[in-house]
Amino acid sequence: MQNKIIAKKDNAIRILGIDPGLQITGFGVIESDGRSSRYIHSGNIRANSLKSDVGMPQKLGLIFRKLTEVVDEYQPDEVAVEEVFISRNASSSLKLGHARGAAVCAAVQTHLPVSEYSARSVKQAIVGNGAANKEQIQHMVLRLLGLRGTLQADEADALAVALCHAHTSVLVGSQRASYSRNVA
Amino acid sequence: MQNKIIAKKDNAIRILGIDPGLQITGFGVIESDGRSSRYIHSGNIRANSLKSDVGMPQKLGLIFRKLTEVVDEYQPDEVAVEEVFISRNASSSLKLGHARGAAVCAAVQTHLPVSEYSARSVKQAIVGNGAANKEQIQHMVLRLLGLRGTLQADEADALAVALCHAHTSVLVGSQRASYSRNVA
Repeated sequence: MQNKIIAKKDNAIRILGIDPGLQITGFGVIESDGRSSRYIHSGNIRANSLKSDVGMPQKLGLIFRKLTEVVDEYQPDEVAVEEVFISRNASSSLKLGHARGAAVCAAVQTHLPVSEYSARSVKQAIVGNGAANKEQIQHMVLRLLGLRGTLQADEADALAVALCHAHTSVLVGSQRASYSRNVA
Repeated sequence: MQNKIIAKKDNAIRILGIDPGLQITGFGVIESDGRSSRYIHSGNIRANSLKSDVGMPQKLGLIFRKLTEVVDEYQPDEVAVEEVFISRNASSSLKLGHARGAAVCAAVQTHLPVSEYSARSVKQAIVGNGAANKEQIQHMVLRLLGLRGTLQADEADALAVALCHAHTSVLVGSQRASYSRNVA
């Protein structure tokens, strides 16, 4: 979904949410004034669209560069990343770690504060139920941002983590740390 | 170990080797003309020296920025990264994945070719035995680079993967791909 609105409202915090994955990384930019949030931009980085013989470094390079472009263009104030569900599969965890490392570097290279939220925290914040399903998340993300239509799943998850951060930021207020980790 | 020699010899390839870790990341820069290699620089990035309440994003930021500085200052032509031993512990794999993601991003942001080598390939290339121990690696790294004294383990491993790449590059010659993955 593309909807470029560059000018930032006064007193609004612009948040970049990221749902990292080595195959598809979702990202979403919102603005929040503490009471309501508005949609700025979102999309997916499809490293799985690269040629099949492309290795991990190139995939990470794509994720890093695209997110760097998003940061440059949309100038978020803060970044929120979905915390990883640690699977029992060490190989999958490693791949996901690579993608998250690339995503976090795109944020921290410009010293943006990065917060992490577990999937459960995100669901609790958006739907009010830590065990909510994908459809419920999508429904509430569209509703909270006043959007119509549908979002790709990773894009919706990225917007959800940004919204979760917006809600949590309001609670934490001016005491917000440069780094926070929120696990329900 | 610090020994700055900036000027590059003609016909030499400058290689940055990296042994990534979320606590300590070793790096080493060598130059190879195909017959012999010389030491340029090496060191460790100690993310474990940061305050105990510092989170993963800051640690990755440190790794990313320090390696970016090394790339800027020593201008390697190619980068070699030790491939991860996938442990049965998914949590450890995830942390190591984060560190490798940050290390690889520091290289690919300037479009440097990145090659990966398994620990076994590195040991085979340096000691001639894929099951060599740390002391044997250290001994041969010092000998191949004409160094005296001792190297910290991660620094030695980083120089070892750079030397492994130098040896492999000679074999592959001009057919070297922009990305290669070498697993013994």
